[in-house]
Amino acid sequence: MKSRRAVYLQMKPVEEAQRAFSSRLNFAGCLKPETIGVQEAAGRVTAQPVFARFSTPSHHLAAMDGIAVRAEATFETTVDRPKELSIGEDCFFINTGQIMPEGTNAVIMIEHVMILDEKTVQIEAGAYPWQNVRKVGEDIVATELLLPQNHLVTPYEIGALLNGGIFRVVVKEKPRVLIIPTGSELISPQDLDSDTLPRGRVVESNSAILGALIKACGGEYRIHPIVPDVFEEILDAVQGATHGDAHIVMISAGSSAGSEDYTAGVIGKLGEVLVHGVTMMPGKPTVLGIINNKPAIGNPGYTVSAIMAFEQFTQPLIYQMLGLQQPERPKIKVRVARKMSSKLGLDEFVRVKLGRVKDTIVASSLPRGAGSVTTLTQADGIVRIPSHVEGVLDGEVVEAELLREYKEIENTVVVVGSHDNTLDVLANQMRVKDCRFGLASSNVGSLGGLIALRHGYCHTAGCHLLDTDTGIYNISYIRRYLPDLRVKLVNLAYREQGLMVLPGNPKGIKGIGDLARDHITFVNRQAGSGTRILLDYRLAELDISPENIQGYGQEEFTHMSVAVTVLSGGADAGLGIYAAAKALGLDFVPIVTEEYDLAIPEAFFEDEKIQLMLEVMGSRAFRDLVDKMGGYDTSKTGTVLASL
Amino acid sequence: MKSRRAVYLQMKPVEEAQRAFSSRLNFAGCLKPETIGVQEAAGRVTAQPVFARFSTPSHHLAAMDGIAVRAEATFETTVDRPKELSIGEDCFFINTGQIMPEGTNAVIMIEHVMILDEKTVQIEAGAYPWQNVRKVGEDIVATELLLPQNHLVTPYEIGALLNGGIFRVVVKEKPRVLIIPTGSELISPQDLDSDTLPRGRVVESNSAILGALIKACGGEYRIHPIVPDVFEEILDAVQGATHGDAHIVMISAGSSAGSEDYTAGVIGKLGEVLVHGVTMMPGKPTVLGIINNKPAIGNPGYTVSAIMAFEQFTQPLIYQMLGLQQPERPKIKVRVARKMSSKLGLDEFVRVKLGRVKDTIVASSLPRGAGSVTTLTQADGIVRIPSHVEGVLDGEVVEAELLREYKEIENTVVVVGSHDNTLDVLANQMRVKDCRFGLASSNVGSLGGLIALRHGYCHTAGCHLLDTDTGIYNISYIRRYLPDLRVKLVNLAYREQGLMVLPGNPKGIKGIGDLARDHITFVNRQAGSGTRILLDYRLAELDISPENIQGYGQEEFTHMSVAVTVLSGGADAGLGIYAAAKALGLDFVPIVTEEYDLAIPEAFFEDEKIQLMLEVMGSRAFRDLVDKMGGYDTSKTGTVLASL
Repeated sequence: MKSRRAVYLQMKPVEEAQRAFSSRLNFAGCLKPETIGVQEAAGRVTAQPVFARFSTPSHHLAAMDGIAVRAEATFETTVDRPKELSIGEDCFFINTGQIMPEGTNAVIMIEHVMILDEKTVQIEAGAYPWQNVRKVGEDIVATELLLPQNHLVTPYEIGALLNGGIFRVVVKEKPRVLIIPTGSELISPQDLDSDTLPRGRVVESNSAILGALIKACGGEYRIHPIVPDVFEEILDAVQGATHGDAHIVMISAGSSAGSEDYTAGVIGKLGEVLVHGVTMMPGKPTVLGIINNKPAIGNPGYTVSAIMAFEQFTQPLIYQMLGLQQPERPKIKVRVARKMSSKLGLDEFVRVKLGRVKDTIVASSLPRGAGSVTTLTQADGIVRIPSHVEGVLDGEVVEAELLREYKEIENTVVVVGSHDNTLDVLANQMRVKDCRFGLASSNVGSLGGLIALRHGYCHTAGCHLLDTDTGIYNISYIRRYLPDLRVKLVNLAYREQGLMVLPGNPKGIKGIGDLARDHITFVNRQAGSGTRILLDYRLAELDISPENIQGYGQEEFTHMSVAVTVLSGGADAGLGIYAAAKALGLDFVPIVTEEYDLAIPEAFFEDEKIQLMLEVMGSRAFRDLVDKMGGYDTSKTGTVLASL
Repeated sequence: MKSRRAVYLQMKPVEEAQRAFSSRLNFAGCLKPETIGVQEAAGRVTAQPVFARFSTPSHHLAAMDGIAVRAEATFETTVDRPKELSIGEDCFFINTGQIMPEGTNAVIMIEHVMILDEKTVQIEAGAYPWQNVRKVGEDIVATELLLPQNHLVTPYEIGALLNGGIFRVVVKEKPRVLIIPTGSELISPQDLDSDTLPRGRVVESNSAILGALIKACGGEYRIHPIVPDVFEEILDAVQGATHGDAHIVMISAGSSAGSEDYTAGVIGKLGEVLVHGVTMMPGKPTVLGIINNKPAIGNPGYTVSAIMAFEQFTQPLIYQMLGLQQPERPKIKVRVARKMSSKLGLDEFVRVKLGRVKDTIVASSLPRGAGSVTTLTQADGIVRIPSHVEGVLDGEVVEAELLREYKEIENTVVVVGSHDNTLDVLANQMRVKDCRFGLASSNVGSLGGLIALRHGYCHTAGCHLLDTDTGIYNISYIRRYLPDLRVKLVNLAYREQGLMVLPGNPKGIKGIGDLARDHITFVNRQAGSGTRILLDYRLAELDISPENIQGYGQEEFTHMSVAVTVLSGGADAGLGIYAAAKALGLDFVPIVTEEYDLAIPEAFFEDEKIQLMLEVMGSRAFRDLVDKMGGYDTSKTGTVLASL
């Protein structure tokens, strides 16, 4: 077993790996030229300079509607000394764009022409030579350079090419990448039609993502059938690929140092491994090699790693082949809401959510898991923490690469706090109502939301904090945690909290009291969440000590994760909202109806995006959708409950 | 005649026209939903919210290579109290991504496992529950919202969809635009194969540009066969189109108020004209109307007007239909190099070239002609001068919309001064050598170049200024005009200047003296150009007065425009370089060999892009290309002639 394990060669830093790779590759003439119609040329790259064949205009043309005259024959005409011109001899009616008749060199606008009869017009001012005339070659002179080599053709330039008499243009063929997905556990989306995934199988999604990314930077891709984790089979596939017509061969997954990670071995056997392992995260298990003078890349298997490694290593190759400079994402300065730790010696690419609160762009890091594609799809930006830095403190200002338009970030309501499924519905309905605006929520629990509000890290906090003395929700907490902030409390919904249990409730759980029973395991929510406070309150009422509950220490951050834990057998019960139980088909034992509110500082209340959010919350359409989820009471939804 | 002329209804300002149009249109349900494979979804827009069908991971998975154990069974293991585990009972070998065996809840990394024999391993530290495990639903929980409605799908999100068990997705069909090109003079590029354009015909290029722009914002287009300027034929075409499957009908050209501009009439007859004429330039003759509840747009005929009107009126419609916010171009502050005048009452969209000189982005306006597509393809940005402003003074700072990446502008050598064809070759070779860098030249004559250098508006000036006292080029002019600047003078080439005449030299012109002959017309270069100084010097030598030369006042700004004027019969002779005459097949009467140099301030000399330019100038490849053009002597090309 141990003998078959690959080991990382010495890992290289990102830039060093890029240099080690590109210095060994020579792309001159690698892409063949191909001739295409100019109409199809937008987005393609010129393989040679393009020179105009025609001049534009090709003749002197009228630039106005009017009469064409010889300017010299109209000199010294004034209001006092008007001049008559005979049509067809001294002047000719002409429309914009028509060719100037022989012998004429100026156009007098029709508005300044008086028609006396069918044969005669009169003018009251002379024309100067070439007045209102577009002269030959004014736009393009035949033989002039229209586009240099290695130029990405834009839609506008299609016009210049056609006007310059270029109807077909020689462009570089698109770089072709062959993606070879490897992994015995993988199943292609095409082969999956049913509602469930066969046990032990994983959807092969990396090829589709990588393919779309390849297309987006001007390349083409083909996906090889999935190859199982068998050295010889991968070897065969890669060998075939390097003799095919692909310009880049990419082996997806198997690039780590695990016992079934054969990529480095295969590339080493067929060619040369230049880099195995890059000091970046995600993206560490990347292999860069050369086979038959072709780049052969071992791309990591975890989705986020796969994307990050692609963007650092394959994408630059594609641009290099095309002779284009790689476009850069815009960068902005952001303030870090929560500390980001980072390992020394690794360049970390931290995915962050961004929001503009007052004049600050606030960045909150998303979970780091390289397998979690949603940490990238939910991200608004990426903060790169260099290898010599151990992390970023909260409040620190750093640079973030933008993954979305800045304006979109500016127009997003940032909700931090307790998790509730209606927030998804709210986000969606806001988008439907006015596509300029959006809503992004982070789940850090009710108290966490209030604290974020205090730090100015969000526009509104979602909370359901029960004051166990008064039975009143949220108000006393807001007074305590936000003493200096004027806040309006708006109801999002009342909702049922209860115990989620497997369908049929096999353990016969009837209430909180049953959690202390033998052979019952529980899954908890994190400290500071409203649901945790509710649980602790109920336990105290029942005089049950947390130590007596098996799984009390097993914490999840959302209702849905708790439901999943129950569904997958990780616990017998968890406390959460009805909507979560219903979504996953669990049974539900109601415990309490609670109030879930949004705390909105008055300073933000009149903001356009907050007003849109409130408008949507008040709409019948939104409340109908929430009611449909079950377990909600929307009778007060959108109502201002208190101004604090 | 007059009776058939349409008149503009009252013209509307841009924003008012946009509002008048969009307030009358209702796009709800206008685009039908269609179901496509997720792999094809990047760039499409969701027609409904998308919820996950699968959780990801769908089972608890190993996040590391190692052994899967039940954490509780490993508690209290230390180096001093190592624990033996029996393979297949207490532990199981597992690779990253594999499903955790029943009863296990933690992975111990293989690096920390000692294999004792085939049946036994030993560990020296315990595991905590869920260590190195990716739990069910960690990334995506079934039923959660993956994408809201009206969302533009990105490549990353393809991964989230596939992992969430979504293999087909419901997106909006692409908005379809039918473009109807009108104009009797037009000829489709498809119908043109020969090297010349039939007299009086104009290449129909607008449809191809508009089509590429429509595609770029997510729409589809079809081009109707060209319709001649006949009211009834246009009426038929538009009527057919509004009953077809297009979502937007666009009539290209004929939207002005000329005698053959029928667009407004046709739309008015079939439906309703909402706007005829917009107070913008270019783009004024735009018609916005509705026929059968479909937007019907009369788009201007001049190419630049066509593009500007499209971007103001059609593009927003497409995004509105898709339910997307229109992306905005980045904006930057720029300093205006030359005064830009503007008409009160019109929003002017001035195309500008941009260059970064020291820390200032300098904007020079390009010619305004709405028919000159090159004023847009050469532009780096657009400065919008609002209708209430009469213009912008030189040195003023204004906002420009960027048409290129900012980095591209930063990496461009800005050459201002005299025109020479080798500058095109230099620009191209720089791009070939290192795609990051480029060169942009403006032709304002040799003296204009030195003055631009003085103002800090360029990196280098191209000049060939003869000191008629000493016979030495450029040096005395630089001393006079740039007394405070340390400048290096680098030779670009020696070149032949001479008289360009029609092939066969029908007027028998042998030298400058002949220009004063009867029946000889001349085309001149603008004052301040080196060629003009040369002419004036020669005329003085020969004691010929400018008044005796017919056409002395007819000025052009480049050698190529002079050549075109001669070729098209606008003059019998013009003074210019051999390369220009050769390019257009004219005969050439040599007059003098002159020196053309680049003046480069020492402050810029070591700049990376200037160094690349110098490297290219010194290369054999560049000099060979210049020699091939003819009329050049490159023996000193790239040599520093003087440091001043």
